[in-house]
Amino acid sequence: MASAPAAGEFELIARYLSHLGAEREDVLLGVGDDAAVVRAPPGHDLALAHDTLVDGVHFPRGMPADQVGYRCLAVNLSDLAAMGARPAWALLSLTLPSGDAEWVRCFASGLDRLAREAGLAVVGGDTTSGPLTVGLSVVGWLPAGLALTRSGARVGDELWVSGWPGEAAAGLAFIQSGEGAQSAPVAGLVERFRWPQPRLGLGAALLGRASACIDLSDGLAADVGKLCHASGVAADLDSRSLPVSAALRAGAADERTLRGWLLAGGDDYELAFTLPTGTDPTPLRAAAGCDVHRIGRIVEGAGVRLDGEPLDPASLRGYDHFSTDPGRGT
Amino acid sequence: MASAPAAGEFELIARYLSHLGAEREDVLLGVGDDAAVVRAPPGHDLALAHDTLVDGVHFPRGMPADQVGYRCLAVNLSDLAAMGARPAWALLSLTLPSGDAEWVRCFASGLDRLAREAGLAVVGGDTTSGPLTVGLSVVGWLPAGLALTRSGARVGDELWVSGWPGEAAAGLAFIQSGEGAQSAPVAGLVERFRWPQPRLGLGAALLGRASACIDLSDGLAADVGKLCHASGVAADLDSRSLPVSAALRAGAADERTLRGWLLAGGDDYELAFTLPTGTDPTPLRAAAGCDVHRIGRIVEGAGVRLDGEPLDPASLRGYDHFSTDPGRGT
Repeated sequence: MASAPAAGEFELIARYLSHLGAEREDVLLGVGDDAAVVRAPPGHDLALAHDTLVDGVHFPRGMPADQVGYRCLAVNLSDLAAMGARPAWALLSLTLPSGDAEWVRCFASGLDRLAREAGLAVVGGDTTSGPLTVGLSVVGWLPAGLALTRSGARVGDELWVSGWPGEAAAGLAFIQSGEGAQSAPVAGLVERFRWPQPRLGLGAALLGRASACIDLSDGLAADVGKLCHASGVAADLDSRSLPVSAALRAGAADERTLRGWLLAGGDDYELAFTLPTGTDPTPLRAAAGCDVHRIGRIVEGAGVRLDGEPLDPASLRGYDHFSTDPGRGT
Repeated sequence: MASAPAAGEFELIARYLSHLGAEREDVLLGVGDDAAVVRAPPGHDLALAHDTLVDGVHFPRGMPADQVGYRCLAVNLSDLAAMGARPAWALLSLTLPSGDAEWVRCFASGLDRLAREAGLAVVGGDTTSGPLTVGLSVVGWLPAGLALTRSGARVGDELWVSGWPGEAAAGLAFIQSGEGAQSAPVAGLVERFRWPQPRLGLGAALLGRASACIDLSDGLAADVGKLCHASGVAADLDSRSLPVSAALRAGAADERTLRGWLLAGGDDYELAFTLPTGTDPTPLRAAAGCDVHRIGRIVEGAGVRLDGEPLDPASLRGYDHFSTDPGRGT
């Protein structure tokens, strides 16, 4: 059609996208045939996830291409981490309004960096002409029967979270305000939004230990709420145990903003998980490569409470502009 | 964001999309967690493919929703057929400009019908807000080491094709001209465009028999050309052997149009494949559920010839409006 990029431009783009990520011996046939062919290890189950990021909906318009490429993989790897799965292969769907080869080169470099770190190979996909949209399907594997789910939390379990929830939302707020990285704590928050760290090591360490797990994309309260709903329980957060980083405190103009970021800020891609009481967190801390904090407990009922009182969703609105995605499936 | 559909509408949509396709015992965890969990059979390899369809690029604007749903699965299943793989699981990415629940209900019904026929379960995915785009990642499996590829054709092999290439392009031409289904042959052509039949039975029957295989999405000459390029050979088509259906002949105003549809018309989703000389096609015909035709042979050199003369791509242009997708990966 008339608006389609020139074929030569698309060939250049295809070249940037044809060898992304780690080289894996279990990839028998990669990009370039009708389908990729891979070989899964025996005795394992496969975890399959897909997330699509739309320009201006799931990331701010004008976000640098390497950050978009990194991000589309990070959010998908975070889903695998929440299942305890080890990343293996991915299919990339890139829809582009024009054949901007330089944009694609930067996009590919951001995605490639994280894919290599995670040991994942991009084995195929599709490049099409249309409004900027990035979709990624990822496949990982884990020992048969051990997948972490959202539905296993039991009354009496402890509720834990990795890292410092709210920092990414604070970073996004500073990007949107145009203040950028003026000061050291703010710069750290902005980096947390730009380069989310999927908690793959922690997810793997939770296998056989955690009773339930979910990754935080839509905010701590909302995502813990989903875990509770799936498990048929309630969660009671202990306000004194919620981890507030020095950077988050320094960045917040007031207590209400701080609480909004902490409880409702999206894009953290940390893991929230439940452990039977008395589980030793030491091996988890070692595997996570980040702090893990006990933030509450699982109780009877439904929904999420703070110090025994139901959380008011209305009081938490407005801290998550780009990840709100009520239709999200897996 | 302001333009996003209401959450209630998206919940309705999520309901339509949460149980698509066949029920499979190897799906341990379907839609609703961070990822789906499935169990592949031992001794098999996995085939992974992804195709994205953009409104107005890969299908005509205003195409009925059930046809869009059917189509996005059909084109992906065709990729699995071309590898000889048996469909198992899929992840659906649906980007919607508005929360039009009725559109999604129809879309889901078209996709569901084909998924059940093919024994495939949609185990997860993502629904997002944005310009209408449908992406599907499919996973199938096949006996270890037996995948059909594009690269195995050898000089002396026979070139075969399933079905009646060109009929889908002719059908699209009648849809675009507004003539619709005025006469019986034209109605048949239009149906061939609307409801492509992925040749899964044929693909499976080709395992261990065919030396190479590709599915026809961009036109017979272009796709046979890709097979030749991957195999390092040329193909010589025999014009008297090319299958021309009575409907195609009746629909074509002149010989040039007929040849354009036949050699360059897209969207057929038939299989082109190579067989060592003397292979008995009887079991293939039985498995295919359609005709298979020997249309030429593999010779030394590069590119595609017709009766020994190089095909002129320029003479074939203009018969494939909606599938031209030079960046297509797997």
